[in-house]
Amino acid sequence: MDFIRQELNRRRPGQSTLTTSRRESDEVQFLSGIYEGKTTGAPIGFIVRNEDHRPGDYEDIKDVFRPSHADFTYQMKYGVRDPRGGGSSSARETVTRCIAGAIAKLALHQKGVKIQAYTSQIGDIRLEGTYKAYDLSQTEANVVRCPDVEKAAAMEALINAVKVGGDSIGGVISCVIQGMPAGVGEPKFGKLHALLGTAMLSIPAAKGFDYGDGFDAPLYKGSEHNDEFFNDNGVINTRSNYSGGIQGGISNGQDIYFRVAFKATATLSREQQTVDRYGNETILKAKGRHDPCVVPRAVPVVEAMAAITILDQLLFQIHYHEFGKN
Amino acid sequence: MDFIRQELNRRRPGQSTLTTSRRESDEVQFLSGIYEGKTTGAPIGFIVRNEDHRPGDYEDIKDVFRPSHADFTYQMKYGVRDPRGGGSSSARETVTRCIAGAIAKLALHQKGVKIQAYTSQIGDIRLEGTYKAYDLSQTEANVVRCPDVEKAAAMEALINAVKVGGDSIGGVISCVIQGMPAGVGEPKFGKLHALLGTAMLSIPAAKGFDYGDGFDAPLYKGSEHNDEFFNDNGVINTRSNYSGGIQGGISNGQDIYFRVAFKATATLSREQQTVDRYGNETILKAKGRHDPCVVPRAVPVVEAMAAITILDQLLFQIHYHEFGKN
Amino acid sequence: MDFIRQELNRRRPGQSTLTTSRRESDEVQFLSGIYEGKTTGAPIGFIVRNEDHRPGDYEDIKDVFRPSHADFTYQMKYGVRDPRGGGSSSARETVTRCIAGAIAKLALHQKGVKIQAYTSQIGDIRLEGTYKAYDLSQTEANVVRCPDVEKAAAMEALINAVKVGGDSIGGVISCVIQGMPAGVGEPKFGKLHALLGTAMLSIPAAKGFDYGDGFDAPLYKGSEHNDEFFNDNGVINTRSNYSGGIQGGISNGQDIYFRVAFKATATLSREQQTVDRYGNETILKAKGRHDPCVVPRAVPVVEAMAAITILDQLLFQIHYHEFGKN
Amino acid sequence: MDFIRQELNRRRPGQSTLTTSRRESDEVQFLSGIYEGKTTGAPIGFIVRNEDHRPGDYEDIKDVFRPSHADFTYQMKYGVRDPRGGGSSSARETVTRCIAGAIAKLALHQKGVKIQAYTSQIGDIRLEGTYKAYDLSQTEANVVRCPDVEKAAAMEALINAVKVGGDSIGGVISCVIQGMPAGVGEPKFGKLHALLGTAMLSIPAAKGFDYGDGFDAPLYKGSEHNDEFFNDNGVINTRSNYSGGIQGGISNGQDIYFRVAFKATATLSREQQTVDRYGNETILKAKGRHDPCVVPRAVPVVEAMAAITILDQLLFQIHYHEFGKN
Repeated sequence: MDFIRQELNRRRPGQSTLTTSRRESDEVQFLSGIYEGKTTGAPIGFIVRNEDHRPGDYEDIKDVFRPSHADFTYQMKYGVRDPRGGGSSSARETVTRCIAGAIAKLALHQKGVKIQAYTSQIGDIRLEGTYKAYDLSQTEANVVRCPDVEKAAAMEALINAVKVGGDSIGGVISCVIQGMPAGVGEPKFGKLHALLGTAMLSIPAAKGFDYGDGFDAPLYKGSEHNDEFFNDNGVINTRSNYSGGIQGGISNGQDIYFRVAFKATATLSREQQTVDRYGNETILKAKGRHDPCVVPRAVPVVEAMAAITILDQLLFQIHYHEFGKN
Repeated sequence: MDFIRQELNRRRPGQSTLTTSRRESDEVQFLSGIYEGKTTGAPIGFIVRNEDHRPGDYEDIKDVFRPSHADFTYQMKYGVRDPRGGGSSSARETVTRCIAGAIAKLALHQKGVKIQAYTSQIGDIRLEGTYKAYDLSQTEANVVRCPDVEKAAAMEALINAVKVGGDSIGGVISCVIQGMPAGVGEPKFGKLHALLGTAMLSIPAAKGFDYGDGFDAPLYKGSEHNDEFFNDNGVINTRSNYSGGIQGGISNGQDIYFRVAFKATATLSREQQTVDRYGNETILKAKGRHDPCVVPRAVPVVEAMAAITILDQLLFQIHYHEFGKN
Repeated sequence: MDFIRQELNRRRPGQSTLTTSRRESDEVQFLSGIYEGKTTGAPIGFIVRNEDHRPGDYEDIKDVFRPSHADFTYQMKYGVRDPRGGGSSSARETVTRCIAGAIAKLALHQKGVKIQAYTSQIGDIRLEGTYKAYDLSQTEANVVRCPDVEKAAAMEALINAVKVGGDSIGGVISCVIQGMPAGVGEPKFGKLHALLGTAMLSIPAAKGFDYGDGFDAPLYKGSEHNDEFFNDNGVINTRSNYSGGIQGGISNGQDIYFRVAFKATATLSREQQTVDRYGNETILKAKGRHDPCVVPRAVPVVEAMAAITILDQLLFQIHYHEFGKN
Repeated sequence: MDFIRQELNRRRPGQSTLTTSRRESDEVQFLSGIYEGKTTGAPIGFIVRNEDHRPGDYEDIKDVFRPSHADFTYQMKYGVRDPRGGGSSSARETVTRCIAGAIAKLALHQKGVKIQAYTSQIGDIRLEGTYKAYDLSQTEANVVRCPDVEKAAAMEALINAVKVGGDSIGGVISCVIQGMPAGVGEPKFGKLHALLGTAMLSIPAAKGFDYGDGFDAPLYKGSEHNDEFFNDNGVINTRSNYSGGIQGGISNGQDIYFRVAFKATATLSREQQTVDRYGNETILKAKGRHDPCVVPRAVPVVEAMAAITILDQLLFQIHYHEFGKN
């Protein structure tokens, strides 16, 4: 339970001046599935109640479509829409992902699998190289969750400047999964990287996903990019890892690493042109509280979604080992 | 049937000097699900037999792990492996995706939805801007399937040079979906872009996916990046489309556009260091026939996977409209 | 909301002397998915809290396996077990089914589909014939929910006698679905009767399911049993309905009717021989409160599961109609 | 492969005078998923071609709805219908179930699980008692697959009499699963008996399913029906097994036994009244070849569906054991 609380605190609003001023203690009340500190196999039910919601803040936007939010698309899909707090499109739902992720991490810990994410880009300030160039133990030492101290300071300054202008900014989160056994993932339509991709792209504001050398892969020839196998004192390892730990959709035992791109928060403190649901053009000025940059708070969400995905696949893979013995 | 054959020809090997020299006519034999030219609702079964397979080509690699292929990971996952033609990890399976995609396109055509993909990068040669800057009707006019004639010629030259060196190269495919109705896609874990992402990442050699301004999104502030709504003669449209036609995971009626990154083909005509399944280090020289660049042939595969994904979601969405009437 | 409450009251404990003496008001608190009295398309979250639970009642059975309960099997499956109230195997979970069923019924009502279940057997007292022989509007007029007044009285007497003996008894529930459109259900592995069957067999204490003339079907020859079609003033109807409204797994527009068998409640007020988790033989005397017969309270549960199943399939079927128009 | 062929022969038409006169050798051609006699983990693709089909036999029924067949319901569902051989509603699809079942049986054999089905009723001739009263090794010794020699002879005579009259008859198949480990199955919506039920109800002509004492359960009081646990030389066993080896949806290690009711074949050799798709009343006289009773040939189908279901759940259960070790 302490571990779950600690993970939630990493996502919680109000951690620093960089994040929304909503004050939520994010207290979890477990309803089912845990008995005497152990999961029982029953569904794990829990509630995290909103404490600092101010429905009045949303009265003005009841009939207005906020640009680049889901207001218009929900209206088109369902014909009705719950405007309170952005309704079910609110990123507040990521609190539940962190709880599930914390539980998944505890199970993965038993298997020696470790997942770490960090901010690798805010605006145009970006870290060069992969996770290997950084000491990830420094990630939580600053409010932007960037393991490079100098870049972290620059990122913080950029977010603050953007906030002063009533504006917002996006970034990139990188993540590495270490201690991964080989043989996990399914071929064709359950490829491990595709499952990680769909998990990451489900996070609000995510715009892209790549793994290994990803969008840089086209720059390399096959002879440069292929990961040669060698006998590493009895273990088959690869000399390089452009593949990002996954070949043919299945883990090869090397580190899995990937990136997720996030756009700037759609909610702004400045005026914007838009229309209401009747088609009338209008001016929107957001009164809700919001993050000028969601990236630092999304770091534990990326880890959580990775943990859930990896644990699922690890459980599936157990089948083969069991029957493979015969 | 003619349309299905035409789509298969776009993916077929042996189209040009850029592709593998395997000769496959890719004749489809339908077994079920079609009666008098119409689908009956029963599963559509079909076979496309290999004609030019040479199992002898694979004898040498029976126990050897080809670098950056799925040989090692399949061995680790299943404990057994079928080496013939790369077994079930062979990209030859994409022929079935093109058949399903052709059928999906026929259904989408009824709804006015049009899907077009094109090669936007080979090696370091890339198209600037989005699909709006190009005349996509020119895509099929050259062997690399790039709508920019000059860039296409440079790409073709690069692939040929790489091929002469016994090497391979990757690239990027861009795709646009036009005529899309608003309201399609599911929130949270069935977001339309996440479903497209998992579909694209399931294609062999895919390394990354982004949509809208994707990995460039972090470079823009919210005020620059938000897509303002306006009343466009009675229709609610957006002035810009950085969102790529999807907001909160649901289509907003604007064009959907996305990119897929592909690595260089792992099979090379030159020697590579590797190990066999017993851990012995060895030299591999591929004798199988292969593509120096899969990107041109992957263009119809990207379209097919997009068509399948969009049709599925369009069918789901019909529910809401039906009940929404009441 | 009133309708949901009314449906819950039909399942609620403490309705009569026939049911458990637990007092639960079964107040539902909706957490999400409903706004201004309409569903929004978001998941409908709700809580029904236990009010009259007495954990002390379960202290004695913490390590004891109650005969014909799920204590032993849960222990074998999960290695841990939550003994409070029978843990997650408690039939108390059926309260959630009634809530979902009530919402499904509201949607089905829009489509003219009506679902009615009734008690057709308790012990060896059984109703002859199908639903056609009874006035189902009388079902809720007595505590056993049997539309035959005399049989209902006999059933009530039997349950009371069994209760006095510290014992329990089972029965059969019959159900009819009227106003069903033709064409609903999927062939092969999604047959409408198979989906209804799995739904019914998921109800605690269910032992069997049949539809149409079910286990009596073998007694009829094909020439007696086949349902002839005829032109009923422009509508294609069948003269008989041994098929129970489903042919080849798909509804044919006639009434769907089926039966569900229930065993006697496993919890008894008398002593029973058993073992504890360490294998020690022991005497169990239940102190928890329980129903001498679950059948009357299971009537709304059967209806709820039928409503959920039918609505799901009705939604799937809409696809075909939409595309079939072209 | 020999085992698969042997299983297919049990289902094959033309085995005796009791079955359809169609001559099908049911030769299986495997296309994928097997290499050097072992499954590779890839999907197992195969074809069994029709050899003795006579499309002309179906010309007359192209527009006619055969009573109690799926012709009318398919037409209503899909708007189109493939009349050849009954299209995709033909029971010929059960050949594929037997192949999958044979493979599942081979895997179950490794785990010591044995599945045996037998004919327990034809028309009004029925076996009393459960599988325990019979020597199941005699099942395959007669053409009706009934382990009671005298009853078998009577059943055979009944089927032949019915056949002479151009009519058909139904029956019941009973099945027992022995060697089942405890702890298999999922609570609530994946109960082992519900999964078996949906599998059985997916078989063409199935009308009902029950397990343990099933539809007889209501006749017993809880004190008679509960299965007492006792310490059987260190193993926890039950003295009786009315539960049919499943408690709370999860196997308890005792034998699982269940019944499936089948109706008479809908195809008859005598005239029947019906209508065509335009609503015209007409007389149907079937020319297709058919079984006067499907029950004997359905015995291996019941076993196959049980094997597939049990293997699936056994694989799922492995998860808990793996993590439970920690």
